[in-house]
Amino acid sequence: MNLRRDDFAALDANDPLAPFLARFHRPKDLLYFDGNSLGMLPEAARRRAIETVEREWGQGLIESWTAARWIDLPEKVGGKIAKLIGAGADEVIATDSTSINIFKLLAGGLKLRPGRRVILTEAGNFPTDIYMAEGLAHLTGDVEVRLADDVVPAITEDVAVVMLTHVDYRSAALHDMAAVTSAAHAQGALVLWDLSHSAGALPVDLGEADFAVGCGYKFLNGGPGAPAYLYVARRWQKAFSQPLSGWLGHAAPFAFELHYRPAAGIKRAISGTPSVIAMSLLDASLDLLIEAGMHRIRDKAQKQMDLFAELVDARCTEAGLKLITPRDHADRGSHLSFSHLQGYELTQALRERKVVPDFRAPDVIRFGFTPLTLSYVDVWDAVGRLAEIWHDGLWRDPRYSVKAAVT
Amino acid sequence: MNLRRDDFAALDANDPLAPFLARFHRPKDLLYFDGNSLGMLPEAARRRAIETVEREWGQGLIESWTAARWIDLPEKVGGKIAKLIGAGADEVIATDSTSINIFKLLAGGLKLRPGRRVILTEAGNFPTDIYMAEGLAHLTGDVEVRLADDVVPAITEDVAVVMLTHVDYRSAALHDMAAVTSAAHAQGALVLWDLSHSAGALPVDLGEADFAVGCGYKFLNGGPGAPAYLYVARRWQKAFSQPLSGWLGHAAPFAFELHYRPAAGIKRAISGTPSVIAMSLLDASLDLLIEAGMHRIRDKAQKQMDLFAELVDARCTEAGLKLITPRDHADRGSHLSFSHLQGYELTQALRERKVVPDFRAPDVIRFGFTPLTLSYVDVWDAVGRLAEIWHDGLWRDPRYSVKAAVT
Repeated sequence: MNLRRDDFAALDANDPLAPFLARFHRPKDLLYFDGNSLGMLPEAARRRAIETVEREWGQGLIESWTAARWIDLPEKVGGKIAKLIGAGADEVIATDSTSINIFKLLAGGLKLRPGRRVILTEAGNFPTDIYMAEGLAHLTGDVEVRLADDVVPAITEDVAVVMLTHVDYRSAALHDMAAVTSAAHAQGALVLWDLSHSAGALPVDLGEADFAVGCGYKFLNGGPGAPAYLYVARRWQKAFSQPLSGWLGHAAPFAFELHYRPAAGIKRAISGTPSVIAMSLLDASLDLLIEAGMHRIRDKAQKQMDLFAELVDARCTEAGLKLITPRDHADRGSHLSFSHLQGYELTQALRERKVVPDFRAPDVIRFGFTPLTLSYVDVWDAVGRLAEIWHDGLWRDPRYSVKAAVT
Repeated sequence: MNLRRDDFAALDANDPLAPFLARFHRPKDLLYFDGNSLGMLPEAARRRAIETVEREWGQGLIESWTAARWIDLPEKVGGKIAKLIGAGADEVIATDSTSINIFKLLAGGLKLRPGRRVILTEAGNFPTDIYMAEGLAHLTGDVEVRLADDVVPAITEDVAVVMLTHVDYRSAALHDMAAVTSAAHAQGALVLWDLSHSAGALPVDLGEADFAVGCGYKFLNGGPGAPAYLYVARRWQKAFSQPLSGWLGHAAPFAFELHYRPAAGIKRAISGTPSVIAMSLLDASLDLLIEAGMHRIRDKAQKQMDLFAELVDARCTEAGLKLITPRDHADRGSHLSFSHLQGYELTQALRERKVVPDFRAPDVIRFGFTPLTLSYVDVWDAVGRLAEIWHDGLWRDPRYSVKAAVT
């Protein structure tokens, strides 16, 4: 491999997505590989924040619920997310957090599968997914949360819902969505996909999937703690019910009826009043992903990941970083994870050198690839700094040790 | 009553809270009596929005979770709200929506009262409170939501949780919190208070209450859909569990443990990732209420409500507006509600004349009193415009009819 920095500059010069870089606030000299944890700030979202706070709230006040169409935001934002995940606009709604939405869909799924009381998931699933299932089991007293290392063979006839994260948050390994969905359906189970690490990162095709959730603050660039979303396949929407039945999911929220009566369609998945300001920023940010197109984003991310992995192989040979993410394009999401015994110290040293990956205990360094905010030269430079840190032994600085960080 | 506008101007001149008016964005000429539905924008919140979006998110990115202490916001904001409701800082946390928090506390309360399966509330409670209880009942299958017109005599030994809104959203009638709490405890039931219309409106003393919830966007001025909060009395915190057990309520969120293990104290009531931007605005807004002091706020609101009611009696006699809010200071919250057959039309005509109350079907006009954003002259002028609208018959304009509004 005889690549030079100029080659990466040439890739940038020919990159159709390069103009998007200037539409984000990219701190000077920062090489940010953590858009898979918190996406960067689009200029459009910054402007929208000011618009929503100053004009809509400050001047419009209560009238903005109708005049600025705040009341329609959950459906409007849901409709935009739908475009990224191969769903119909009427199948997705932005609301609450991923955790809360998992609870709604698991409870709703159990109601649709009477007689079955098992939620099946992977032991390696993102913890909050498992914790929410445990909360539901604790509440109802008769639901079992079953953990499997390999889910497909574990789908038995007592399983009501199979819950999986599409892209593994540690390794970035990608599940074959169609195959798992089909295996679940063959046993009469429903499937709930967590798209937190796939929506906005790669084109998603929900196909026959029943339910999905995902978060707004990673690849969707909605801002810290942005609203999450959920998907209910059209064919289930009439029978679907969920227990967090707040007033904005009511068929007539402002009629103040005595008893709950679910809204038609996906709106019944809303609970209380949404955070309008947070929802507005997500609304603005989504336009950039839609404009760029998920296929172009995916193509660039794959290329960037290939180059990053090759550069690490070539320039950081002695460091002994072990890539735990599949190299095959079809098998991975949009981050590269390396395991390393000194992963924590390396992450800290990188951050001090203005390269931002993140760390997942006990030993994984994750580099996220978000093509709208990351150039090819960024890829070159990041691996360059990683190589320097290793060769110079900078990561041995006691300031970077785990112990120092814990105190 | 021989008051003149000058008398109201004199009250403003002597009002120790008057300087707060300039610290909010008060649209020119608007007489805003709907701070009980959506509080006005404090300048401090506007500045904080820009700070949080541009500097913390835009420049600080993922590091802001620790560097800008985003991770501490739910506790920090909860601690500020605690000051307004007579709670300890460790008893309140800002999180999710009021609806979601009701679900957590009802489910948690039922677990603390094994053998009891009744949630008792008023038929006149705010609908979402009832709807969330219904959702819980539907999910568990063995919980009864019992509605009473008069709650205290209906508290029987099968009641697990009595759930009431402290200030009635329609009439502003105030429950005697200590008396109801005591009556519930005498029967072995727990009490959950919804403070949405009392926190920030009047000094609250939770006393022996077990649980409470409330919203951030009304009297707390946190912005549209601001995060809500919940209270769990210190004595329950160890035994308390709640089913929406997301990762940020875990004892070690970033250890990514396989099973849920609740955080110590109030933090176990958190579910997923909070909306940082929305939470930051609420954080900034709360400082104004704390600085002003709830007793001063309450005193001014009572005076303003007395004057408003007197002016309506004196100047709108023929209009036949019937005050359904108690006149006794001890029996009311911080809004005045009038019933009127043409309440909807009057509300519309008032809004066109830049007086903003709100309307609750079928016939109630609500005027909210938020002393930090409302002057005495505002009170005079609002009743003046109301009198004009009535005398001139403006409300008869067909544009204001309910039918026109429905289409």
